[in-house]
Amino acid sequence: MLNVGVIGVGYWGPNLIRNFDNCSKTKLIAVSDLKQSRLDYVKGKYFYVDTSTNPFEIINHPNIDAVAIATPVDTHFELALSALKNGKHVFIEKPMTPTTVAAEKLIEEAEKRNLVIMVDHTFLYTGAVRKIKELIAEETIGDILYFDSVRVNLGLFQHDVNVIWDLAPHDISIMDHLLQKKPEAISAVGVAHYNRNIENVAYLSVFYPNNLFAHIHTNWLSPVKIRTTLIGGTKKMIVYDDNEPSEKVKVYDKGVSVESAEDVYKMLIKYRTGDMWAPHIENIEALRMEIEHFADCIENKKTPLTDGKAGLRVVQILEAAQKSIKNRGELVYL
Amino acid sequence: MLNVGVIGVGYWGPNLIRNFDNCSKTKLIAVSDLKQSRLDYVKGKYFYVDTSTNPFEIINHPNIDAVAIATPVDTHFELALSALKNGKHVFIEKPMTPTTVAAEKLIEEAEKRNLVIMVDHTFLYTGAVRKIKELIAEETIGDILYFDSVRVNLGLFQHDVNVIWDLAPHDISIMDHLLQKKPEAISAVGVAHYNRNIENVAYLSVFYPNNLFAHIHTNWLSPVKIRTTLIGGTKKMIVYDDNEPSEKVKVYDKGVSVESAEDVYKMLIKYRTGDMWAPHIENIEALRMEIEHFADCIENKKTPLTDGKAGLRVVQILEAAQKSIKNRGELVYL
Amino acid sequence: MLNVGVIGVGYWGPNLIRNFDNCSKTKLIAVSDLKQSRLDYVKGKYFYVDTSTNPFEIINHPNIDAVAIATPVDTHFELALSALKNGKHVFIEKPMTPTTVAAEKLIEEAEKRNLVIMVDHTFLYTGAVRKIKELIAEETIGDILYFDSVRVNLGLFQHDVNVIWDLAPHDISIMDHLLQKKPEAISAVGVAHYNRNIENVAYLSVFYPNNLFAHIHTNWLSPVKIRTTLIGGTKKMIVYDDNEPSEKVKVYDKGVSVESAEDVYKMLIKYRTGDMWAPHIENIEALRMEIEHFADCIENKKTPLTDGKAGLRVVQILEAAQKSIKNRGELVYL
Amino acid sequence: MLNVGVIGVGYWGPNLIRNFDNCSKTKLIAVSDLKQSRLDYVKGKYFYVDTSTNPFEIINHPNIDAVAIATPVDTHFELALSALKNGKHVFIEKPMTPTTVAAEKLIEEAEKRNLVIMVDHTFLYTGAVRKIKELIAEETIGDILYFDSVRVNLGLFQHDVNVIWDLAPHDISIMDHLLQKKPEAISAVGVAHYNRNIENVAYLSVFYPNNLFAHIHTNWLSPVKIRTTLIGGTKKMIVYDDNEPSEKVKVYDKGVSVESAEDVYKMLIKYRTGDMWAPHIENIEALRMEIEHFADCIENKKTPLTDGKAGLRVVQILEAAQKSIKNRGELVYL
Repeated sequence: MLNVGVIGVGYWGPNLIRNFDNCSKTKLIAVSDLKQSRLDYVKGKYFYVDTSTNPFEIINHPNIDAVAIATPVDTHFELALSALKNGKHVFIEKPMTPTTVAAEKLIEEAEKRNLVIMVDHTFLYTGAVRKIKELIAEETIGDILYFDSVRVNLGLFQHDVNVIWDLAPHDISIMDHLLQKKPEAISAVGVAHYNRNIENVAYLSVFYPNNLFAHIHTNWLSPVKIRTTLIGGTKKMIVYDDNEPSEKVKVYDKGVSVESAEDVYKMLIKYRTGDMWAPHIENIEALRMEIEHFADCIENKKTPLTDGKAGLRVVQILEAAQKSIKNRGELVYL
Repeated sequence: MLNVGVIGVGYWGPNLIRNFDNCSKTKLIAVSDLKQSRLDYVKGKYFYVDTSTNPFEIINHPNIDAVAIATPVDTHFELALSALKNGKHVFIEKPMTPTTVAAEKLIEEAEKRNLVIMVDHTFLYTGAVRKIKELIAEETIGDILYFDSVRVNLGLFQHDVNVIWDLAPHDISIMDHLLQKKPEAISAVGVAHYNRNIENVAYLSVFYPNNLFAHIHTNWLSPVKIRTTLIGGTKKMIVYDDNEPSEKVKVYDKGVSVESAEDVYKMLIKYRTGDMWAPHIENIEALRMEIEHFADCIENKKTPLTDGKAGLRVVQILEAAQKSIKNRGELVYL
Repeated sequence: MLNVGVIGVGYWGPNLIRNFDNCSKTKLIAVSDLKQSRLDYVKGKYFYVDTSTNPFEIINHPNIDAVAIATPVDTHFELALSALKNGKHVFIEKPMTPTTVAAEKLIEEAEKRNLVIMVDHTFLYTGAVRKIKELIAEETIGDILYFDSVRVNLGLFQHDVNVIWDLAPHDISIMDHLLQKKPEAISAVGVAHYNRNIENVAYLSVFYPNNLFAHIHTNWLSPVKIRTTLIGGTKKMIVYDDNEPSEKVKVYDKGVSVESAEDVYKMLIKYRTGDMWAPHIENIEALRMEIEHFADCIENKKTPLTDGKAGLRVVQILEAAQKSIKNRGELVYL
Repeated sequence: MLNVGVIGVGYWGPNLIRNFDNCSKTKLIAVSDLKQSRLDYVKGKYFYVDTSTNPFEIINHPNIDAVAIATPVDTHFELALSALKNGKHVFIEKPMTPTTVAAEKLIEEAEKRNLVIMVDHTFLYTGAVRKIKELIAEETIGDILYFDSVRVNLGLFQHDVNVIWDLAPHDISIMDHLLQKKPEAISAVGVAHYNRNIENVAYLSVFYPNNLFAHIHTNWLSPVKIRTTLIGGTKKMIVYDDNEPSEKVKVYDKGVSVESAEDVYKMLIKYRTGDMWAPHIENIEALRMEIEHFADCIENKKTPLTDGKAGLRVVQILEAAQKSIKNRGELVYL
């Protein structure tokens, strides 16, 4: 049984609390938030849990094995580092840290102490993304040609981070997980309509070797909610629409085929239009599965799917995007 | 009555022929195509029309007042220039020319001779775009903050132009028409999966003064057809989905409002979610309306909505995009 | 403060428990279920609540003012009658009773004792149905011509009631509420594929005076979930799609108009196609609003919107449908 | 080569004319319509065709082998009978005749003279219906449990027939073709809002032996166009949405399974939710394929898929529906 403390009861914290409480492998011991009102809310549902407005009471708590951090991103590093130094495993919200330097330092600290650090890239644990991963692994899709993701809606403007830092970690982590390739460079553009420093519409382009290309569109100011990812492969193509209540993943037997080098030259391309197929997607709460995986990694000394390095790879792209966006799409090598 | 000759009976030519034949203000006199089989096809439907495999027979035809050019883009300049020099008005397919220099030369020639040159940016004559234009002109939308357009499907790979030259002229002309602003710079990225020189997936970003921003996504290799434009305004927002059989334009009373400069600083943003409204869209074939407009402009010495200058503005952006895409998103000033 | 006991912790009971616990006007005192495991589940969330496997401990509980009954329909009458006889107000699941006789007896008993009896026709408290009611009341829709509702999906086969008793109470209560008319007769057809006595596909037609007509389609064996109601009015028409995450109610300025009696004879009908409009729908949990209404009715001696008589009207139609369906659509007068 | 004359240039006639003109196995010889303006319209497109305002000039035309009849339904019998008596094969619009007696007489006449009579149930020749037929024939779907079809929109009110005679022939012919069973009885209900004799909303229930059940909903007064057919099978279920531009047919691996007779009694039903699959549908104009089939049947003495008997089966159901609807759903045996 893994004893867990949760720091931060904002938007996402209650989901962590509920799942750490429900999971048969973890026990919720203590919760911290700067606001007493949030702790009262927690006490109302989980009367047996310790609460404190001081996060360090969680970090120093003698009965706690692991700390889950669901606070604003600029506090992640300090809290996670303290937790690691206190010998606690760390479960940390995305994005992992505000800088790659900070992420690297946390990875190093965890490795030194043989502690698990896991980043909450929840989407990788959804039935939909696991199914897509499986289809790619089985070579159903063929070589991936492009990844295009749109994540837009009338979203809450964040005070501290722009729309890329807020929304794109989802898409970047999915992209990183599915493509399993190291990007060469990125280019990002965007615009801040209400605050010169915080972009509310942004587009991120990611250049990979061998003509693999990815693009992510994020927008807090869209009248409609769109959550659609297109994945083009040489054999099949995928449309992943997270708004669909069922049939989130559709596999299309569509594409082009070029039979010889000469054909490429002459552009003698054949078009293929076949069946569409929507595989059944398992309907388990992703966070529940993720938290079991966290407990399992600690118990059995495994490396989490979304370990510190996965968190770092996302932060590297975010950091590069930040730089590029300030220079109107300047190419930033990774 | 305007006597018209059509050059080029490829994909779009038959639509021009049918509409010039039907329009009460125009008379179809002659048609040219390099392939005799295409001319036989035309003769089968319009037995009374002259045909020739030589386009210059149209251009030199003594009874023809106007020439419509629906040939590959690299032939537009020569044919249009000859037609103007022969005193013919010109109706020309999009994109107008392969270079801005060529477009400028045609505009100059037409002005010198008091001839009309009109570019076939058909979408501007659709009920949907005319309705959106009206909503903007009436100040229903407020100041436009962004324009985001997606035009993707499993499209025919062109041999001579990339996906931006093939598909984006539609979106660029709509953008130019609705925003009525001069862009400062563009950045384009893309990838050529099957031919190193012809991109089949591409993204175009357009920077306007005062934080106005536009983005266009084109793709020949998408499993699904998407034709969606989001337009964010300070008062209302629009979703224009050209795939919808009815209700193509939806107006959302959604957005954010910031009441004072201090509020901006504090990010005290209020969110507004109200009704949605889909105005009735007139269902007239755009090309029919466009051809009547062409005849009307010639008869009454008016400037067409999509005159040579409108065509030039589109070519300027395409040319800049071409340059940017080869340098992975390099900012190109206009 | 209204002290409440809940009987039945099956599919819906937990929602009642949560809302009676949250509501500021009600206090959850005790919960009963025949299965101890369900009571343990309740205790885990609401440790301060009394529990019992004997429903009569709730009914006889001295501190309880009102009893909520969420048990199988064939137990409703006995439990509700006992509760009323013990001087408790009653909140009862739909359908109210298995027979009209039983419903009438409960209404009589409640009236005699000045107690409130309210039937949980939850849909009437949703933002969508309240908005439609408002549009009808304001005469935006004109005279209603027809009401057509489809409620189908791969649903759980019930052991005791057929698909009409299971699903149609939602549609019948909405129909009753919106039309505010007394139906003349009904005809129902259906088929029992897996058990000769329990229909799993069924269609109900309701005849009202003056050519007003309603139809309800229910199906437990549909591959897709459909929840769509069409309402045709002389001025406007409504599509209410409960599956839509937003824009559940769409109002169409469409229809026909006939200008004179002679026109009717000649069928000189004019078609009207105008704008579509999706009013903003308030997003409050219906059950929360309903439970506040229940407490308010008791406190202020008001008649609930969904009182016993509303419950009875639904049971009358269900009972008639049962008779009609066994005789393959035989017309049953009400 | 089959020489064909077409009678009737209303809504559908032009499609027949175009296809008989295009088809390599047929030659369009003559066209008739009571209105000269419609014949002028035909002459404008097909200058080489004979025209007459007298249909009997077609029927008596010495060079014509087959007559296509696209006139109002109450003229079908007289025209078809005359054509047959003149030794012409007959292609006739749906519904075949206004009465079963008339249909039987035509069938008899055609048989006596060894002439082909074919009814234009176009939908049976669409890629979608052919694919569904194939899936049923291959036993992919299992035994069919129900057929439910909705065909509603803001449709033109007909002067002479009600909405069932206007729209339901499509669904009835598809049902007849797919189920290949003889129905026992029908029940129909409906309402005439603008003319007491012509129902504009109607519902048709069809009872087959062994609990097979079909239902068809037709409506001229719906704000939205719906064209959806649900087909429930013991192995798989189909949703056929004719409004979908692609993926018209979706096959769901969903349903229930009951393993033994005892399970039925106990309602121990297992639910199955698997993949969804949208087979590629061939995109050929149905009418083109149908007219080739007509010519082929005449040339090679085959029985058409939609022969007179198929037309008769549709008329039988329409006639019974007419009777039932006037008696508010009275069961009418076939």
